[in-house]
Amino acid sequence: MKKLVLTGAAGRLGSYLREPLSEMADELISTDIVEDIGMTYPSERYIAADLANYEEIAAVLEGADMVVHFGAIGDERTFEELLGPNFIGAYNIWEAAYRHGVKRVVYASSIHAVGMHKKSDFIGIDAPHRPDTFYGLAKCFAEDLASMYWDKRQIEAVCLRILSCAQVTNARALGSWLSYDDLVQLVTRAIDTPSVGFSVVYGVSNNDRVPVDNSKASFLGYRPKDNAEFMAEKILADAPPVDVTDPGQMCHGGPFASVELGQSGLATMNIIDDKKTT
Amino acid sequence: MKKLVLTGAAGRLGSYLREPLSEMADELISTDIVEDIGMTYPSERYIAADLANYEEIAAVLEGADMVVHFGAIGDERTFEELLGPNFIGAYNIWEAAYRHGVKRVVYASSIHAVGMHKKSDFIGIDAPHRPDTFYGLAKCFAEDLASMYWDKRQIEAVCLRILSCAQVTNARALGSWLSYDDLVQLVTRAIDTPSVGFSVVYGVSNNDRVPVDNSKASFLGYRPKDNAEFMAEKILADAPPVDVTDPGQMCHGGPFASVELGQSGLATMNIIDDKKTT
Amino acid sequence: MKKLVLTGAAGRLGSYLREPLSEMADELISTDIVEDIGMTYPSERYIAADLANYEEIAAVLEGADMVVHFGAIGDERTFEELLGPNFIGAYNIWEAAYRHGVKRVVYASSIHAVGMHKKSDFIGIDAPHRPDTFYGLAKCFAEDLASMYWDKRQIEAVCLRILSCAQVTNARALGSWLSYDDLVQLVTRAIDTPSVGFSVVYGVSNNDRVPVDNSKASFLGYRPKDNAEFMAEKILADAPPVDVTDPGQMCHGGPFASVELGQSGLATMNIIDDKKTT
Amino acid sequence: MKKLVLTGAAGRLGSYLREPLSEMADELISTDIVEDIGMTYPSERYIAADLANYEEIAAVLEGADMVVHFGAIGDERTFEELLGPNFIGAYNIWEAAYRHGVKRVVYASSIHAVGMHKKSDFIGIDAPHRPDTFYGLAKCFAEDLASMYWDKRQIEAVCLRILSCAQVTNARALGSWLSYDDLVQLVTRAIDTPSVGFSVVYGVSNNDRVPVDNSKASFLGYRPKDNAEFMAEKILADAPPVDVTDPGQMCHGGPFASVELGQSGLATMNIIDDKKTT
Amino acid sequence: MKKLVLTGAAGRLGSYLREPLSEMADELISTDIVEDIGMTYPSERYIAADLANYEEIAAVLEGADMVVHFGAIGDERTFEELLGPNFIGAYNIWEAAYRHGVKRVVYASSIHAVGMHKKSDFIGIDAPHRPDTFYGLAKCFAEDLASMYWDKRQIEAVCLRILSCAQVTNARALGSWLSYDDLVQLVTRAIDTPSVGFSVVYGVSNNDRVPVDNSKASFLGYRPKDNAEFMAEKILADAPPVDVTDPGQMCHGGPFASVELGQSGLATMNIIDDKKTT
Amino acid sequence: MKKLVLTGAAGRLGSYLREPLSEMADELISTDIVEDIGMTYPSERYIAADLANYEEIAAVLEGADMVVHFGAIGDERTFEELLGPNFIGAYNIWEAAYRHGVKRVVYASSIHAVGMHKKSDFIGIDAPHRPDTFYGLAKCFAEDLASMYWDKRQIEAVCLRILSCAQVTNARALGSWLSYDDLVQLVTRAIDTPSVGFSVVYGVSNNDRVPVDNSKASFLGYRPKDNAEFMAEKILADAPPVDVTDPGQMCHGGPFASVELGQSGLATMNIIDDKKTT
Repeated sequence: MKKLVLTGAAGRLGSYLREPLSEMADELISTDIVEDIGMTYPSERYIAADLANYEEIAAVLEGADMVVHFGAIGDERTFEELLGPNFIGAYNIWEAAYRHGVKRVVYASSIHAVGMHKKSDFIGIDAPHRPDTFYGLAKCFAEDLASMYWDKRQIEAVCLRILSCAQVTNARALGSWLSYDDLVQLVTRAIDTPSVGFSVVYGVSNNDRVPVDNSKASFLGYRPKDNAEFMAEKILADAPPVDVTDPGQMCHGGPFASVELGQSGLATMNIIDDKKTT
Repeated sequence: MKKLVLTGAAGRLGSYLREPLSEMADELISTDIVEDIGMTYPSERYIAADLANYEEIAAVLEGADMVVHFGAIGDERTFEELLGPNFIGAYNIWEAAYRHGVKRVVYASSIHAVGMHKKSDFIGIDAPHRPDTFYGLAKCFAEDLASMYWDKRQIEAVCLRILSCAQVTNARALGSWLSYDDLVQLVTRAIDTPSVGFSVVYGVSNNDRVPVDNSKASFLGYRPKDNAEFMAEKILADAPPVDVTDPGQMCHGGPFASVELGQSGLATMNIIDDKKTT
Repeated sequence: MKKLVLTGAAGRLGSYLREPLSEMADELISTDIVEDIGMTYPSERYIAADLANYEEIAAVLEGADMVVHFGAIGDERTFEELLGPNFIGAYNIWEAAYRHGVKRVVYASSIHAVGMHKKSDFIGIDAPHRPDTFYGLAKCFAEDLASMYWDKRQIEAVCLRILSCAQVTNARALGSWLSYDDLVQLVTRAIDTPSVGFSVVYGVSNNDRVPVDNSKASFLGYRPKDNAEFMAEKILADAPPVDVTDPGQMCHGGPFASVELGQSGLATMNIIDDKKTT
Repeated sequence: MKKLVLTGAAGRLGSYLREPLSEMADELISTDIVEDIGMTYPSERYIAADLANYEEIAAVLEGADMVVHFGAIGDERTFEELLGPNFIGAYNIWEAAYRHGVKRVVYASSIHAVGMHKKSDFIGIDAPHRPDTFYGLAKCFAEDLASMYWDKRQIEAVCLRILSCAQVTNARALGSWLSYDDLVQLVTRAIDTPSVGFSVVYGVSNNDRVPVDNSKASFLGYRPKDNAEFMAEKILADAPPVDVTDPGQMCHGGPFASVELGQSGLATMNIIDDKKTT
Repeated sequence: MKKLVLTGAAGRLGSYLREPLSEMADELISTDIVEDIGMTYPSERYIAADLANYEEIAAVLEGADMVVHFGAIGDERTFEELLGPNFIGAYNIWEAAYRHGVKRVVYASSIHAVGMHKKSDFIGIDAPHRPDTFYGLAKCFAEDLASMYWDKRQIEAVCLRILSCAQVTNARALGSWLSYDDLVQLVTRAIDTPSVGFSVVYGVSNNDRVPVDNSKASFLGYRPKDNAEFMAEKILADAPPVDVTDPGQMCHGGPFASVELGQSGLATMNIIDDKKTT
Repeated sequence: MKKLVLTGAAGRLGSYLREPLSEMADELISTDIVEDIGMTYPSERYIAADLANYEEIAAVLEGADMVVHFGAIGDERTFEELLGPNFIGAYNIWEAAYRHGVKRVVYASSIHAVGMHKKSDFIGIDAPHRPDTFYGLAKCFAEDLASMYWDKRQIEAVCLRILSCAQVTNARALGSWLSYDDLVQLVTRAIDTPSVGFSVVYGVSNNDRVPVDNSKASFLGYRPKDNAEFMAEKILADAPPVDVTDPGQMCHGGPFASVELGQSGLATMNIIDDKKTT
């Protein structure tokens, strides 16, 4: 591949992807809204751009083969706050991809697009949308947009519905954890699979307690290696009692399923995340 | 019911709904973006408001029991043109409904939310979103929003996926026609059914050639009476040859399935529609 | 047919079936726990018997071709109260049928075997059991028993999951009503269909708002004629507001879905029912 | 339509189709293996041809718009006997259609392609093949052939899985009857629907006891009018006792499900059928 | 956990569970119908109680956090013999759990609840009940009871449908074997998973020839380690010829699928089992 | 096993099977159309026979316990060329098996029976037939034939839908590869499983990118060991750009999905295969 673009490069997950992606193309263009990203990898170049600004995004995507779109506000906010980066930003990416001949978008979608399904329903990649937050609603929007750009304009897309790519610190994460290594494998497969059409795949490690079903995305060859079970004994020993009437306990979205719309869901998880990422 | 709101009241479908809705509540508030709507029915009052303006919409919904939301640009346009009335407008309706205790939204969704499915697939109300246009994408967005407001805030919603509520002038309409009488029945049932949760139902008459499956919305009691078959002989005799590789012929969305994104789909059907409606 | 047996003949539904059944066989044996049933129809003979007593039931079934089993306590009670007539009674019927060469049992099952499913789920005859009461649990038990006697001993069975065979007096009944005429048709078809194996079919009229799906029992030829919609306007005008968090409003079982286990569900519906029937 | 071809024109069903088909095209070419077919309808011309002979068939199809393919041996025979007319004959029709630009084949398939499914399974048009005879196996072969010619060469096809188009003389026919009028409607719809791709539809009347599910072929607009139920009382009164272990009683294929492979199934039904038809 | 109860502690499977369960709670109350159970583990206390006696069971469950319910007659018997321990016993457990605030029941259900399904149908946890014996019918009863106590009273339940937890001595066991180690893991997961609602999971090892599908219970994290394949060569070499018309060979229930109702199924397997267990 | 027959013994796959099969029976009869096959294994005997000739085939099968049927033309050809060996040949095998008491046929079916399904559809063993070539159509024919011989005559069959049993030389093979070792395991399991009824199973290794779902054939115990992923890096680096509108890239059948009917598909893959095999 000649040119690859990574959005959200300054974010938590984006930061991890810069090095591996820089090795997959002659040139990696990293972009985010911050002015500077510090040191870059050999084939990497950083360009600051605002997702909500079509002209800036179009300039970044020009001449690219693929774009790995991880840029967005990575937490629940009000609809007004998310409208620019998460909604319009997604439109800008696909529209710029179309106009500039970019053949594929690898997109950081999220479990929160289907977060109100019950955890006891082993949902597959074809479960109907059931967002738990405006954040999740933006993921639904982008997935539907991706579906349309494939059907109408043959822009390929892989939507990675990431469960929780963070330290394993609570009972939910025993099932939902996505390790960084598995994240890298997932993004790699989404890039190297020769044809993907419009695809959806859950981003989750090979946990014993994995609550979602990736079998229908099998042809992508994503085979995670890590397993959160090594943390089970410690976490379950300390786990607080469960309220079985709390959607935050019973639904795939976890805390996002019980948080008030427009209020930070990460805050309830004590995840400090001051960067703009998924 | 004390107070009912109808948006898009100046539009093609909205115009037909004003009279029957005015008889279902003590007060019907009709609203649209035009300044004046002319004569009103006995219990009807008209208030001009811009869907894209939250404050104006909130003022209209205050104190209402339900809102029948038919307001939107009723054709394919660019994403930028649809963003205000069709996307933000939908958000404004549900958010205002929540803040003002409105218990249910009856929403004019559309077949174009699933328009890229093949006509030979007898899709049910649970078919995954597969929009054919930005217009259809806005319907997907509003349906997902409705699902979330039900799950998180118990605002009920009935999403009416209207197929084609217009004169029967082509072969597609033999299957997709929704007569005005059946439209009225459909909206009536969406209002009078005691509990609906989050529901989706196709808006289509009892046509011999009906291509979609409403069985899972059976509890709503929508039983259409009209049938486009009376036009079949004449239309089929004059029908041009079919190109079986044209998505516009093979997909549920009809002309919208083959039109360029952002370009009017109604124009290709020779439907003159100078009003802002579904 | 030479000899047909009807249990629960003194009950509300049984009373309606005596005359039509008496015309379908050379001899109809009606049975119930009461000592006397008054006047009998020409080919009818009444024998008092306790369902919970195998010997008494076996004596009644001897030589019969089929048994129409409507006998049971027809309301929610404690498990202890239902154990004899509803559980052991069902076992006695099938075991006696087997030992005496009776080839088919037509059984009054009930929607309460699946009453905790949501009304917005258009459940078919293959929906998993989800009883709402001990009363419904007894229906699950008898259906599973019937399945086993078919698989192991080739005793045929039709389980009629009756929704609500009573006057249309509330909003739920607009969907769930089974008219007496349709009940008679249903039982007739369950008897005259040449082979039925183990079958389940919902007992509900041709209501506009019918909430269940009988399509998979289509070969039985049950085609109901009545429709509760004629009562809709009046009932909906007077209907109290709905609490969307109340299972009694949202689930198929209606009041039984919200009643305390062991406490009469009919009482909450103001149905006076002092007889032992379904 | 300019030119339409009907094969099996001398057969039982073909004979009924000649007149209505002759009114649907400027020219109807009727063909069968017999030398002469007697009087012809105004726009009809008869050409004798052997289905097993590609050259003869190709000559008949030249210049046709569509072909209605009802020619075949209409009963169970040995594989060797069916190989020519039923297997190779089907290949010859589709291959000749392809080479001569015929755009659609309307094919008389049969319930016997899926005859070993249980009658209590309400099979849809997507039930897997489960033939009951070599006769049914030939129908499976032709359906798969039709699927392939559509996928690879865009030859459209409607496969009409006819249940039993004959007098209602036994209990099975109460569910499986296809009246001649409904047959004509079915073939008409298969011809006049603008686009059909590769479709399968059951050929059965609107019987109360209909055992198969046509809903997924809904877009074809086939809405049968006749109902075998008028014969039910008489037939059921005289019906012999059922052996529930006999596949001929329990399976969709009826007598074909229990007949020895290679031996006439119609003989067991006392149907005298000395013509070569479905 | 403070207090855990194990029923059927003197039985074959119960005996294996005493030690691991005694390590999972401050106090393990083991119970069975025998007077004495011999030596106990450090935190274990034995109380004799009759499952069929509510008062005795209620006394045992008082103050417990969870109950692991393995007590029952562990073989096919007549309905009358099973009624007390297997049917009424299950009711007593759930009712006592409800009245005493026990939050979860881990229940030894069985493959025999669905034993009449064909082995070539890879049944999931949502396969409809299809019991093969009165023993299996009691499992169906308890599962439906568990479903109801969850829906109505929020008592959680995990129903472990054990296939065959015994030595691998025949061809069926190559697929159906559950090793003791995997049994312990299964029960452990059923206890330590923070929320389970009403769940069903098959109890089977990681056999190459496993005939059932646990994927929908994935969130429980049960990942068996053992595999019966090490016995395959020896067993298959000695295996008697198969009668493909014998339900005992073709159905999930194995010998129970062909045994007469009411007669011991274990006897046909030469399993000596003189204890009261599953 | 006393006597086992292998057809297609001179073919590419057949050659690999001769040695392992010779160790599974007292006598292995290998057959193919060539006169001589060279050296034989200790218990092996070679008999030349033409699949299209019933008498020759019947002589080979006499007294056999099972037949492993791999004989056929192993590439796309015209229908006329395949009719003898692939269609009539299959009939001859099953008919001879029936007449001579052979209890099971293990059949080399192929992915090409379902080759027109999209690769992004994770098809199971119950996907409807959708052949991509006359070669695939012959596989459909034989599978349906096998289904019928099981339903009507209790001849067991395992249809092995082999994906691509050849060197891993292109991107498609990363998912579709079946190693020779796994082929041997697959055939072994198809032989040693005590009862199989009519079964279908995909023949594919344990590749990361496996595109089909074998879960419903789980009871056969086929657990492949090899994985084509070791070739991924090299192959993907050299892979030509993909045309997403080419069925050969997007469908399970690979090159067969885009080849003209009747023209060699292997030629497009540069596979030199001058033998008559699957």
